[in-house]
Amino acid sequence: MAYSTIQIGILGCAEIARKVSRAILLSQTATLCAVGSRSIEKAQKFAADNGFPATAKVYGSYEEVLDDPNVDAVYVPLPTSLHIKWAVLAAQKKKHLLLEKPVGLNVEEVDVILAACEANGVQFMDGTMWMHHPRTAKMREFLSDAKQFGELKSVNTCFTFTADQNFLENDIRVKPDLDGLGALGDVGWYCVRGILWAADYELPKSVIALRNPVFNKAGVIISCGASLLWEDGKVGTFHCSFLTNMTMDLTAVGTKGTLHIHDFIIPFEEKKASFISAVECGFKELALGWVPKPSEHTVTTDIPQEALMVREFCKLVGSIKNEGAKPEKKWPTLSRKTTLVLDAVKASIEKGFEAVEIVS
Amino acid sequence: MAYSTIQIGILGCAEIARKVSRAILLSQTATLCAVGSRSIEKAQKFAADNGFPATAKVYGSYEEVLDDPNVDAVYVPLPTSLHIKWAVLAAQKKKHLLLEKPVGLNVEEVDVILAACEANGVQFMDGTMWMHHPRTAKMREFLSDAKQFGELKSVNTCFTFTADQNFLENDIRVKPDLDGLGALGDVGWYCVRGILWAADYELPKSVIALRNPVFNKAGVIISCGASLLWEDGKVGTFHCSFLTNMTMDLTAVGTKGTLHIHDFIIPFEEKKASFISAVECGFKELALGWVPKPSEHTVTTDIPQEALMVREFCKLVGSIKNEGAKPEKKWPTLSRKTTLVLDAVKASIEKGFEAVEIVS
Repeated sequence: MAYSTIQIGILGCAEIARKVSRAILLSQTATLCAVGSRSIEKAQKFAADNGFPATAKVYGSYEEVLDDPNVDAVYVPLPTSLHIKWAVLAAQKKKHLLLEKPVGLNVEEVDVILAACEANGVQFMDGTMWMHHPRTAKMREFLSDAKQFGELKSVNTCFTFTADQNFLENDIRVKPDLDGLGALGDVGWYCVRGILWAADYELPKSVIALRNPVFNKAGVIISCGASLLWEDGKVGTFHCSFLTNMTMDLTAVGTKGTLHIHDFIIPFEEKKASFISAVECGFKELALGWVPKPSEHTVTTDIPQEALMVREFCKLVGSIKNEGAKPEKKWPTLSRKTTLVLDAVKASIEKGFEAVEIVS
Repeated sequence: MAYSTIQIGILGCAEIARKVSRAILLSQTATLCAVGSRSIEKAQKFAADNGFPATAKVYGSYEEVLDDPNVDAVYVPLPTSLHIKWAVLAAQKKKHLLLEKPVGLNVEEVDVILAACEANGVQFMDGTMWMHHPRTAKMREFLSDAKQFGELKSVNTCFTFTADQNFLENDIRVKPDLDGLGALGDVGWYCVRGILWAADYELPKSVIALRNPVFNKAGVIISCGASLLWEDGKVGTFHCSFLTNMTMDLTAVGTKGTLHIHDFIIPFEEKKASFISAVECGFKELALGWVPKPSEHTVTTDIPQEALMVREFCKLVGSIKNEGAKPEKKWPTLSRKTTLVLDAVKASIEKGFEAVEIVS
């Protein structure tokens, strides 16, 4: 039995919405059915520039998208401080929700959003695209392989990029009233998600911020880092920044294996991506070299990770809409865990780099 | 004017001395002229197995090597707790000193050793082989390039290997009376040196150990880590361990560039080694990929890094011996700085993970 594609509306015309509009088209499981902006002209231009079909509705407000009975789901790339209002309203209007990260300014906001989604039976998913790349699944296989990787003991992640002067002065991610989490919520979100992913989403016991956060004049974090510690002695460290060259490293070290990746968030190329694995490495006689050497694995994908994200979201929405399934709890759970760790990093910075316990 | 090669004696028959004996042969600037062991049979077997020429002397004690007037310099791979005795004695006997790392159990010991070398006009160098690989020089060029790399902001290193049960029970590196620094002095030495190297040897202001050190039953560290902080906000983090798969990562992130390397201590192969550099990376339109992508650089070498270490050591010894030059201070300075940081990591662990200031 064939169902119609999922009808997705977009709230706002953020830069990232262009990439996601393209992903919706590429996913072949969804239709760009509406876009709303506070400026209808902006919405019209956005629809025209981004491949919206002639049937798509263009609105001069976000409310109208939520009130459109044809809209199954909304993608919300608004500034973080607006998430709680519009995400909750979307859920109340029974719209499934693909929400950009960071999901909220703190876990209390995230809980309000997730509770609204649960109460209204709508699917929630955040916009962490790399979770959906087939490479991520391949790397997970490696990390889960007791014979190849063994037990995770240490993981380090780094996501930085050099923001230009315009970004540092004007981007919403450096404005306390728009994205108060700054670099921690933007690039740090991925670092923390990467560490949690490597730890199979087990929450750390405590978090200690590194003692070199950088703030802008408005007090927003533009560079920081932390160490995360688990009960069993596992440790994670990360560094995130708007002030250094684009770097996206993840290194996970297990008792038997090691995983290296240099582009874990956005692959160097769209259709193929690689990672390096090393298993039970030792030295040649006299330690003159390694046996075996690490090996590179390439994973190809017909459509990019963001289109696979849309496809996964639409699969879940379709199951609810057409088959009466319940929303998948995995995605809201991951968003909440990521936020709990970000909150602890922020709290540790505020408390003078004390250890902050994670209470879930 | 041609001078004779430097005559090197070896104290003890440690496993690593086999690799360095081969390096001395390969260096073509030194002669294996003597070996001493508490067991003369062991010394005889060592000399026979490791290419010592027929003219080489074999002694049943370390003292005899130091008393041999033909010996210009000694290589000392004894357990760390014995360094102070034998290194000082070697210096007093006017033998130039190639000393295995860690140089001493703490900076006080290192200072005694270095003072003895200085007082006796002998060259000091520790056995950190990777410093001498031409790849290291190439990477330094990159880090020093203000246009390519910019200013260092963050560096992470990791050196771990999976020790087997025999190592964990019997190796000198897990014995409190032999190598009391354990994994910190062995693998951690390289992590700290790597960070200092990336920071152009500027000492950090403070060090905080990560809260997950692992000790063996005798109280020796077998896994630990730390963060290092500089006045200017630079941060270094490292993880070192005998408990996880062999991993040798260094990632240095600058304002304009990034350096990645996965085998910085012992290259995967002897005669060629590579590193990855990335310069002013950005995204393609819509962040669909990277422009430019990081690039890999391969550096070849005719002789391995340990032979280049011997060659550098012999060049300095030869200048002193033949041309009346003064000992080169770079090498003792690096050993001392590395030890200062190791001491601070150990102190931070002992003080319950407090920040420990580095006082040089």
